[in-house]
Amino acid sequence: MSEITNIALDAMGGDNAPAEMVKGAVDAAGKEPAMKVFLIGREEAVKRELAKYQYNKAQIEVIHASEVIETAEPPVNAIRKKKDSSIVTGMKMVREGRADAFVSAGSSGAILVGGQVLVGRIKGVERPPLASLIPTKKGVSLLLDCGANVDARASHLVQFAKMGSIYMEHVLGVKKPSVGIVNIGAEEEKGNALVKETFPLLKEEKDIHFTGSVEAREIPHGQTDVVVCEAFAGNIILKLYEGVGAVLISKVKEGLMSTLRSKIGAVLIKPALKATLKTFDASEYGGAPLLGLNGLVVKTHGSAKAKEVSNTLIQCVTFKRQKINEKIRECIQADTVSVE
Amino acid sequence: MSEITNIALDAMGGDNAPAEMVKGAVDAAGKEPAMKVFLIGREEAVKRELAKYQYNKAQIEVIHASEVIETAEPPVNAIRKKKDSSIVTGMKMVREGRADAFVSAGSSGAILVGGQVLVGRIKGVERPPLASLIPTKKGVSLLLDCGANVDARASHLVQFAKMGSIYMEHVLGVKKPSVGIVNIGAEEEKGNALVKETFPLLKEEKDIHFTGSVEAREIPHGQTDVVVCEAFAGNIILKLYEGVGAVLISKVKEGLMSTLRSKIGAVLIKPALKATLKTFDASEYGGAPLLGLNGLVVKTHGSAKAKEVSNTLIQCVTFKRQKINEKIRECIQADTVSVE
Repeated sequence: MSEITNIALDAMGGDNAPAEMVKGAVDAAGKEPAMKVFLIGREEAVKRELAKYQYNKAQIEVIHASEVIETAEPPVNAIRKKKDSSIVTGMKMVREGRADAFVSAGSSGAILVGGQVLVGRIKGVERPPLASLIPTKKGVSLLLDCGANVDARASHLVQFAKMGSIYMEHVLGVKKPSVGIVNIGAEEEKGNALVKETFPLLKEEKDIHFTGSVEAREIPHGQTDVVVCEAFAGNIILKLYEGVGAVLISKVKEGLMSTLRSKIGAVLIKPALKATLKTFDASEYGGAPLLGLNGLVVKTHGSAKAKEVSNTLIQCVTFKRQKINEKIRECIQADTVSVE
Repeated sequence: MSEITNIALDAMGGDNAPAEMVKGAVDAAGKEPAMKVFLIGREEAVKRELAKYQYNKAQIEVIHASEVIETAEPPVNAIRKKKDSSIVTGMKMVREGRADAFVSAGSSGAILVGGQVLVGRIKGVERPPLASLIPTKKGVSLLLDCGANVDARASHLVQFAKMGSIYMEHVLGVKKPSVGIVNIGAEEEKGNALVKETFPLLKEEKDIHFTGSVEAREIPHGQTDVVVCEAFAGNIILKLYEGVGAVLISKVKEGLMSTLRSKIGAVLIKPALKATLKTFDASEYGGAPLLGLNGLVVKTHGSAKAKEVSNTLIQCVTFKRQKINEKIRECIQADTVSVE
């Protein structure tokens, strides 16, 4: 039997906690026998949800944490003060090796700060980026950094490119993933100061398959497998994806409801349209890992439902089986040695 | 009769030149009698197109320019070397007061450089931003800077906010336009170094109606009338808007063609869907002006067709009638004086 992956799941984080978190855990455990989920949160509330399901008792355990960090709380303060929160408890389990991964739909700020402070970085990793899978015309690309480190330096972006390549190759199974840097023109001489400094460094890297600049227009077309950028830009890309998608879909619906003729048509197209649009739905692809930590921390959407939670938990198993962190450690440290 | 607005139109710029440029000029001249269009480009080619239409000869004149600046050419060099290009000729006409505005679908780089070097800035304007109207759920917002000045400073962003407010109020007729700064969180303490420095400056400004941060997710919902950001971010927003829109629409079409049932439905919904999606099409809103120049320079999409060209030409008339440049001059110079 495979080695068990132990995952601490924040049962209290996100808009749909604890119900959808618990449901996601039960679902994932049913699909993956080599997984144990620790549901962390207010014991009574979590157990009440859990009682609704049939599941293998050996695979799910509730761990009590009395506090909850709210989204609006200043993260550094929250991590320091709320020692018995689900986020702090789960992160400590990863630090102490009692869990391989921590998954949360809670406060992004607290997860980013906690990942660095409580779980800690792999030696040699300068900044752990938030890496998000985004849907494209061709399938999916990995966008990083999506919001962990604003005002990053060129050396950080180079590490993002390496860690992103490892993730795409070994978690998603993409052979020789192509890497692009987000830029405002296709030519090498274009860009802001950071991109101009980073471009030649990426070109020199032998571990990655750098293909040059990616204009934002080309990202949804899936021009490269790994899309590297600074966190301010990455966060804009991620959020705008959601925003434009949501508004456009609502426009389509408005159009469908505008005439009697179109209403009849709408009934006919609904199932086919739903199936196609599902492939362009970010929640299908699980949460966003913070790469480069001593353990795995994954942030799911605040609005995550059971399906996203379940997909994320299963991704954590792949992450462990594929020894992603060992590969990151080797790659980053080989580089550190060669520099010295 | 109203004062004539003289517009130099680059007949050679963009993917559909000269045909769509000429068609757009004829269309606009027919709609707006107080407009004169100078079609600048290779005389023979332009006249051949023009011969296809009926129009008031007093309103359209062809001015020969033998050279064309290509999109791939390094802009500074191109502006310096190609003295007889349509872009240089048109910009010089603005500088010399023979035209009020120059409109081009050609090389963005050459238009941005030419605007600064050949047309010149209004005294006190530090950096002229490229301002683009973007479709939203509610109507339209003005995004600036969309690509003119990467690595801008806080004082530049404050001027963008002022110039954008003037444009929205007097060209689009939005009373007391709201202004937001693009940020990666809604709270004041979030953001990168530039946003953190700019935020309090915008808060202090009495000339504008600053409402705080705008997350990228909210831009398509039309959270504010004016959306201020640095050019690297602005260019990403503009291009990603196009990219996500294009891919999503192609996904919808794919869905419609996937089953027999959906194909029948597609025939029924087509007219209604087309009408609704038109409201979300950037080309409906004309080109992007470079604000803060001694004259008006407008960049239309490289793929602009006659309709966008015509809308842009008519916008130039409004720009002149509403004395936008006088208002910008007053606003920026009042500020310069009060600082001293």
